[in-house]
Amino acid sequence: MGYESLKERVLKANLLLPQYGLVKFTWGNVSEIDREKGVIAIKPSGVEYDVMTAEDIVVVDLDGHKVEGSLKPSSDLDTHLELYRQFPNIGGVVHTHSLWATTLAQGGQGIPAFGTTQGDYFYGTIPCTRDMTDEEINGSYELETGKVIVETFKDLDPTAIPGVLVKNHGPFAWGTDCFNAVHNMVVMEEVAHMAWNNLVMNPSLTEMSQTILDKHYLRKHGANAYYGQG
Amino acid sequence: MGYESLKERVLKANLLLPQYGLVKFTWGNVSEIDREKGVIAIKPSGVEYDVMTAEDIVVVDLDGHKVEGSLKPSSDLDTHLELYRQFPNIGGVVHTHSLWATTLAQGGQGIPAFGTTQGDYFYGTIPCTRDMTDEEINGSYELETGKVIVETFKDLDPTAIPGVLVKNHGPFAWGTDCFNAVHNMVVMEEVAHMAWNNLVMNPSLTEMSQTILDKHYLRKHGANAYYGQG
Amino acid sequence: MGYESLKERVLKANLLLPQYGLVKFTWGNVSEIDREKGVIAIKPSGVEYDVMTAEDIVVVDLDGHKVEGSLKPSSDLDTHLELYRQFPNIGGVVHTHSLWATTLAQGGQGIPAFGTTQGDYFYGTIPCTRDMTDEEINGSYELETGKVIVETFKDLDPTAIPGVLVKNHGPFAWGTDCFNAVHNMVVMEEVAHMAWNNLVMNPSLTEMSQTILDKHYLRKHGANAYYGQG
Amino acid sequence: MGYESLKERVLKANLLLPQYGLVKFTWGNVSEIDREKGVIAIKPSGVEYDVMTAEDIVVVDLDGHKVEGSLKPSSDLDTHLELYRQFPNIGGVVHTHSLWATTLAQGGQGIPAFGTTQGDYFYGTIPCTRDMTDEEINGSYELETGKVIVETFKDLDPTAIPGVLVKNHGPFAWGTDCFNAVHNMVVMEEVAHMAWNNLVMNPSLTEMSQTILDKHYLRKHGANAYYGQG
Repeated sequence: MGYESLKERVLKANLLLPQYGLVKFTWGNVSEIDREKGVIAIKPSGVEYDVMTAEDIVVVDLDGHKVEGSLKPSSDLDTHLELYRQFPNIGGVVHTHSLWATTLAQGGQGIPAFGTTQGDYFYGTIPCTRDMTDEEINGSYELETGKVIVETFKDLDPTAIPGVLVKNHGPFAWGTDCFNAVHNMVVMEEVAHMAWNNLVMNPSLTEMSQTILDKHYLRKHGANAYYGQG
Repeated sequence: MGYESLKERVLKANLLLPQYGLVKFTWGNVSEIDREKGVIAIKPSGVEYDVMTAEDIVVVDLDGHKVEGSLKPSSDLDTHLELYRQFPNIGGVVHTHSLWATTLAQGGQGIPAFGTTQGDYFYGTIPCTRDMTDEEINGSYELETGKVIVETFKDLDPTAIPGVLVKNHGPFAWGTDCFNAVHNMVVMEEVAHMAWNNLVMNPSLTEMSQTILDKHYLRKHGANAYYGQG
Repeated sequence: MGYESLKERVLKANLLLPQYGLVKFTWGNVSEIDREKGVIAIKPSGVEYDVMTAEDIVVVDLDGHKVEGSLKPSSDLDTHLELYRQFPNIGGVVHTHSLWATTLAQGGQGIPAFGTTQGDYFYGTIPCTRDMTDEEINGSYELETGKVIVETFKDLDPTAIPGVLVKNHGPFAWGTDCFNAVHNMVVMEEVAHMAWNNLVMNPSLTEMSQTILDKHYLRKHGANAYYGQG
Repeated sequence: MGYESLKERVLKANLLLPQYGLVKFTWGNVSEIDREKGVIAIKPSGVEYDVMTAEDIVVVDLDGHKVEGSLKPSSDLDTHLELYRQFPNIGGVVHTHSLWATTLAQGGQGIPAFGTTQGDYFYGTIPCTRDMTDEEINGSYELETGKVIVETFKDLDPTAIPGVLVKNHGPFAWGTDCFNAVHNMVVMEEVAHMAWNNLVMNPSLTEMSQTILDKHYLRKHGANAYYGQG
């Protein structure tokens, strides 16, 4: 009861994934947290986008116990939960197998900050996680996936770099809410494509200077931002 | 008589090929078997997708003798038949010249299992067949194509790896029925694209670990599967 | 008078170019010949596809003198005319700047016969013309372009290889009529893309065997063809 | 008052960017100058294309002082203004982060004149700007971006080469008016894609001869042009 609005938002954000060409079949999932109520809403597991309704969205608490919904949540739920628990400023999470970000994830290759398209949204390289150990894979795999993401950000600010590539798997992105998370995923897929293009053309290309990165990131973020109508 | 439902299904599955961007013109064909009745239904040869009707679908027995239909069956019929005869658990077969899978087939390059997108559907590398001999090519070419596919799977389980690249030609995929076969072909084209991306970026990239492959394949297949609502 | 049907056909064939994604703006042109009447109909120069009507199609004789129409013919007219004069079995010609065929043309790289997709339509490598001399370029450039294509085919059968890449420029294709020419151009763009993929992945890749090429080309062409309903 | 027509034109030209697939979200902007009135109209900053109206278009004078409009102009305004001030023959300017042109910009790689598709519109290589200094980046960044473009053209004719890549950033194009500028940007993105293809296939490929470049550029531009109906 009382989660209709949250479930509607999460449904809409999930439906954006095929619209943006980020998923085939059911290969993606979006969630959003309501931190006041202590719940997150997430896509159900293995349900096709074209038949999904707000009623199908599953609501769970931060330990993953179901609060509302008749379907099983996405099998990636435990990864989302770990990110919400450890990154207290994020409000939405998205996972896909989009073509270019997944290519780089398969290659164990982060997304270098080659240009301002990336710098407008990500304050530096988008990292790729390390290999998971056999114990992690054979243990609570989805939870361990979340933990290895968090480990990757031990010296990074997840607010300033709102996405990651999970090695051999694919991208996760997050944001202030579920729509912002999807927005960041669209950007990530585009800069992944550009970065792949550059790496294939010139494997020794270096990243842009810190000065340009600062200029672009900070003209859109923080106290001195001057982009947009805000 | 009595094959209307089978022909409707095969028509629909064939029409999915242009919808998924897997074929140009008439460059593809889908069939399905009814093992109880001992017949398969297949696309007619060289008929455009936008004028094809269920009546055009050809029904033959497992020796290729026509049971129903006024048109000639796909020229690839004998390849389909050999697969149905030798792989007793498959229910549908599809062949296309889709761009990325055909690229790898032309290169004699199987699809390495670089990531979990592939591991969710294919339990390892998708193989490429060997060169056919002149005798095979000049003999019953389409039947021999089927035989070389079967030979390629002599130590592989066609249920666990539901597809193959035929060297210098293009991909074949199969599945539990004609729709599942098309689904597997969509996956194969996507992982072929990713694999090509990775091979061009890093020709010495190794496949993911057996542990991750097991985890992903087995969380969707077999007794301990936990993906989806099943 | 009496060319309405020819002009309608040529209009329709020209409109297929943007539909197949082969052209941007006005970067392409299709013509068809009526050998009995000794005329060809061709797209006017620089007219946008979305406003073109059958009345705009220009009819000229084989020397290029205008027979009907108020607009100037395509600037590539003289290339088309030379092909019709020297290749007596062709009925339609098309020129585009489609992405992949143009890439190979810019690279001076013919399209190697890597696979059966090409072999089903083209009986071998699709050649690229030699560099034109300054005299040819500064002379009757479009006529000389036709002549260098004809020279490229001095030991090739233009019926069996219905297309060519003009170096630094782009592809020309032909066929039995204007629609068949466009069909061949669609094939050429697709096999150009595949060939580029293969050349980038493995620059030393060799072409398929003559035996497979014979099998595929001859099962669709000539006295022993068995593909399709014919 | 009196800028309705100018604002309508600039709105329409901006809306062409997503139609041509040149932008995601708000990653682009188009402006046009009315040199008699001494004003330019430009897209507002950070406004989505699907809600933008002609009223949102901002009108400023050549020093950037607002003449009409309630919104903030594009953050790239000062780059546009510098181009209008220094290139007196141009009437429209466009900036995007389109995929292929941005890839080359990130690589610090100009667009070599490999073929006639480029030669029909650009009279030679499309240059890439030098690295900006920290002082330029930390100073009036957008103005300095315009200045480094102008510096890049100190020995080039901006009318004959109506576009540039800004290093680590993306493409700018211009033209006789805002629609012609967008047209040139579409061409630039296409030839950037072709050039990337060629550079990846053959890094040592040389440009086409000056003779072919002259022929193609001059058959469409200048006193002896013979392309089109003009």
